[in-house]
This record gives sequence, C-alpha cells and structure tokens, in this order.
Amino acid sequence: MQRIINKPDMVVEDMLKGFVKAHDDIVMPTSNPRVLKYKDAPVKGKVGVVTGGGSGHKPAFIGYIGKNLCDAVAVGEIFSSPTAQAFYDAFREADSGKGVACLYGNYAGDNMNVKMAIELAADDGIEVKTVVANDDVASAPKEERHKRRGVAGEVFMWKIGGAKAALGGSLDEVIAAAQKAIDNTRSVGIGLTPCTIPAVGHPNFEIKPGTMEVGIGHHGEPGVEVCEIKTADEMAKMMVDIVVPDLPFVEGDEVAVIVSGLGATPVMELYILYNKIEELLAEKGIKVYKSFVGNYFTSLEMMGATFTAMKLDDELKELLDLECNSMGLKVFGK
Amino acid sequence: MQRIINKPDMVVEDMLKGFVKAHDDIVMPTSNPRVLKYKDAPVKGKVGVVTGGGSGHKPAFIGYIGKNLCDAVAVGEIFSSPTAQAFYDAFREADSGKGVACLYGNYAGDNMNVKMAIELAADDGIEVKTVVANDDVASAPKEERHKRRGVAGEVFMWKIGGAKAALGGSLDEVIAAAQKAIDNTRSVGIGLTPCTIPAVGHPNFEIKPGTMEVGIGHHGEPGVEVCEIKTADEMAKMMVDIVVPDLPFVEGDEVAVIVSGLGATPVMELYILYNKIEELLAEKGIKVYKSFVGNYFTSLEMMGATFTAMKLDDELKELLDLECNSMGLKVFGK
Repeated sequence: MQRIINKPDMVVEDMLKGFVKAHDDIVMPTSNPRVLKYKDAPVKGKVGVVTGGGSGHKPAFIGYIGKNLCDAVAVGEIFSSPTAQAFYDAFREADSGKGVACLYGNYAGDNMNVKMAIELAADDGIEVKTVVANDDVASAPKEERHKRRGVAGEVFMWKIGGAKAALGGSLDEVIAAAQKAIDNTRSVGIGLTPCTIPAVGHPNFEIKPGTMEVGIGHHGEPGVEVCEIKTADEMAKMMVDIVVPDLPFVEGDEVAVIVSGLGATPVMELYILYNKIEELLAEKGIKVYKSFVGNYFTSLEMMGATFTAMKLDDELKELLDLECNSMGLKVFGK
Repeated sequence: MQRIINKPDMVVEDMLKGFVKAHDDIVMPTSNPRVLKYKDAPVKGKVGVVTGGGSGHKPAFIGYIGKNLCDAVAVGEIFSSPTAQAFYDAFREADSGKGVACLYGNYAGDNMNVKMAIELAADDGIEVKTVVANDDVASAPKEERHKRRGVAGEVFMWKIGGAKAALGGSLDEVIAAAQKAIDNTRSVGIGLTPCTIPAVGHPNFEIKPGTMEVGIGHHGEPGVEVCEIKTADEMAKMMVDIVVPDLPFVEGDEVAVIVSGLGATPVMELYILYNKIEELLAEKGIKVYKSFVGNYFTSLEMMGATFTAMKLDDELKELLDLECNSMGLKVFGK
C-alpha cells in the first residue's frame, strides 16, 4: 500500500487528532473520542443538526461540521457505522433544547444505531427526528426508493438542513427542508479503480483496468453495468441519462449540481466531466444554478466520480446561498 | 489509463471549459483561450497580480484566481510552461495602470516566457515586476537557492501578494511582501506513486511499490533519497528535518503550514501526516498559527504529499488572514 498511515487500525484515531488540530477555529473534540462538534455547539435557540457515518469519505462526514452546517458528527471506523453511543453523544452535544435533526445516509448499520441512539436520547428528553438520504439512483429501482443508499446528495441535505436551522427553523421545519432537499436529489457514480481499507490491506472489490463500473456505491457496492472505459463525454451522458429521468428533472428546472471525485481522480478531470454534464443539461432545458466540482464525498483512494443534481425552488435556493464555513464546504453569503 | 478524459491532447481545453462554467461567479475567460481572469479584473486602482504555469497541478494555477488573490493566470499544457503570449495577455488583463506583480515558480520555461512577456508589456507601457518562487528545499543546496524550484509555497506567495495588492500596496510593496513570503517559506515533497500525462499514456518516472521518494518535484523530478516506505510519523519527521534547519525555523517562531496532497492521496492521510508535523514543530517550540491541509498543489494522480512552512511576522499574519475567495483557497475575514 502506497499510503501515509501509521498502524492500519489507528487510521481513524490519527486522522481525528490531525483534523482537530488543523481546524480548531471550527471544530472541537468532545468527551467521546468518536464525536466531534462545532466549536459553538450547542448553539443557543437553534435546532441541532447531527450526522455520522463511516470514515474514509472525507470531507464527509466531519468536514461538514461548521457554521450553518452540522453541529456534531458521530465518527465510525473506515466504511463502518458509528456506534449508537456515538450518535447518542452527538445528539447531546448538538441539542440546545430545541431538538435535533439527524440527517444521515441509508445504510443498515447507521439505521440501526441511529434508532438505538434516538431511544437513549428520548430518555434524556431530547427530541430527535431524522432524514435518511437515499439519492443513489443505481442502488435500487425507483419503486423501492427506500432501499436506495445515500451518497454525495447528503451534502445538499446537510447544507439545506443546516441553513434552515441557522435561520431559526423549528425541528419540523428543519426536517421538512432537509427531506425536500433529498427528495429533490438524485446521484450516480462511476468507479474506475477499487480502493483498499488500510486494515484489510487489499481491495475488497475489483475493477479491471480498461473497464469502469457504472452505478458503483461509495464502498464498492456493485453497480448496474461494467463496461469498457468510455470517454469523459460518454460518461457524462451515461450519468445524465440515469439521473435526469429518475426524478424526473424536466425542461425549465433549475438545479444545483455536485460533481465529486471518489478520492484519487485528479480534480482537473472532474471539470472535464462537468463541462459535458452542464452541456447535456442545458440541451434538456435544465439550468445549473450553482455547481460544486471537487472532492465532496470520496471513497478512500478510489478513482472515479459521482454526479448529483438537486431540483431547486425558491426556498432551496435561499438556503443553498446562505453563508457556511466548514472544512468541506465554504460558501460566502451574497 | 483509468481517467476521465476525452482526447488526451484536449485535456486542458476541456478542463478550462468546465472550470469557467463552474466558477463563473469568480473567473472569466479572455480573448486568449489560455488566459483566465478574475471577473472584476483589472481592479481599478489596484496592482495586478498574475501567475501562470503548466496544467495538472489543480488548484494551481487557475484555482487561485479570485478576490484578493490572482487577477489573471496564464495556462500551459500539462506540466509545460504557458507561452510568452499567454503571460503577456495575462499582464494586460490584470493591469489597471498600477503595474503588475508576476508571481511564479522557478522553472526554465516559465523564466524564459515571463521574461519575453515583460518585454512585450514594456512596449505597451505596462510595468511588470516579478517574484520567483524557490521554496523546494530538496531541489538544490541552500547556497544555490536561486536554482531551487517553486512548489506549494507558491500558494503563500499568491495569498500574501494578492492581499497586499488588495489593501492598496504599490507595485514595489506587493513585490516586497510576496518576496518576503517566499523568502520565509520552505517546502519538501514525498512521492509514493508516479503519474501519467494523458497525452503520453505512461508514467515518465518510476516509484517502485513499497518505496517512496523524498524530495521529489511536482513533475517527478528526482528527489534526494529513495527508500522503503515509512510510517506517516516517520515521513513527518523526515520532512520536518529537511524543512526546519534550512530557513532555519527556530524556537519561538510562528508559522503557517500547508500539507498538500499530490493528487491521489486521500485527504484523510494528510491529516495523519499533519498531526505528527504539528507535534514535531511544537517540540521545537515552533507554533502553527494557521494550517491548510488538503489538495492545494497537486501533480495529476500522483500519490504523496508536500509540507510547506512559512515563518510569520505581523505583516504576513495580517495578509494571511485577509478574506479571499477562489476555487482553491477560501478564507473568511476575521
């Protein structure tokens, strides 16, 4: 492994130490070593926003702690759910008495541990409501959307939910805004290389050189098609053809777009991909209101990219445009 | 190649199109397809700040166009200098009549083309002065510092020069600030994998699996030592032991630090590296005032990282803290 690590089973521990040092203007450690919080959390009078998930997806999840974003994050091992205790402690760190919106991705471990954590929090009188991201189109058919996984669309869910909370929304209003964000969002990924969990030491799935996997998940979950590697323009077309009909996005829509690398793909190439995606959307009469091109939700050192689109309305535009400051997402207010 | 490209010799062209679309709130194309400018450039009454260099180093160089940063950038092919014409056109786009500070890296092609461009600009009555970054410690002995290459320390040079210009500095003041920034800055890189220029199709240098190259340049220029791959903590020590004695950084110093990935190294690992670097500096009585951990200056899909430190004084702190907004660097004002 050509990697910058110490002991493979200490990767998360070591990373968290460095992260806290590098971002002490934004984040703070808590008494639970697997929970980080926004330095001003709990923010008085504000609904708390919490997320959590496995490590290896940087900036997700801890990179979205910050002003007008997430207040606390539960941290799991590489590609593994945080514990129920970590989610519970995150709820406690985030709650100012206004309740907590837990905005997380649809994975079995996270679902189970969030559920247990909510029960623990209820005993403390902390009200927690959830939105479960399921934006990954390729992970289940449309009629079984509840089975779909959450991927890079979670960034929009956090942005929108975090902004709604910052503007004084009630718990129900924050949940409604975050739910609308994810309901309006669809994603798809293309994988070009596998990745290696340091403690495992070899890839746990395969992508043969010269091929690519369309619809791959953030942990190497199988996609819908393995084919010869295509040009960037052809990849863009495949992605648009999967994402657009699913919502569906239609002529006249305005959208926000994320083109995220999976970790090891040069950012230069993401712009090549975005160039064609924007063109294809424009041909369909779909206007990109705001775009985010870069590494927003990764999978260790996988090569490849994801395309995410969120259909906007006036509320979502206002929330998207609100200033925020985190390691992973910085937006200057208008 | 597991890459997201169309025609290999159209990579820069396609990337620029996507970049301009994605960042039209910050950058604008110009009549020279290989020059991008800040949307408000030339900024009235402000010294223009220009840089330029080969492509494949994103965010460098175009990612540092923006508010209180660079006004115009000349774009080269992958790992190749921009033309003299591109530098000249960038000067013209940036100049508001106050002169232009051209802040670039010490490479033969760039030196030659900048020199020719300055002559062309002189004919137009545009005054251009330069700072040539040479922060890469491993690229030449200390007594031949003028032979050293510019690497990630250029980001500090642009930040400081851009801020000085934004605050109304004269051309000589901007040059002096940027020169002080780079004089106070030292960098070193460790490479873990080679990279492939798309139009070439295979790596033009080798790093054998299980080994690493200390002191490697941003285009695979040979380093000072090839050895078995070490732990992150050992890599941190090697980097600190090269960088610190060279300036030298001494007890009581405050520094700004960049730990940049080379492209394909997961950002998670950069935090592991930073954790130890910060600790080693602290042991020497050197305090990190501000840190930047992420992909700030890359080499296509190389794995590895660079460590950059800049010794601070009150002026450099003030300039470092000034708000800026670009694709590659966003700093919120205090």
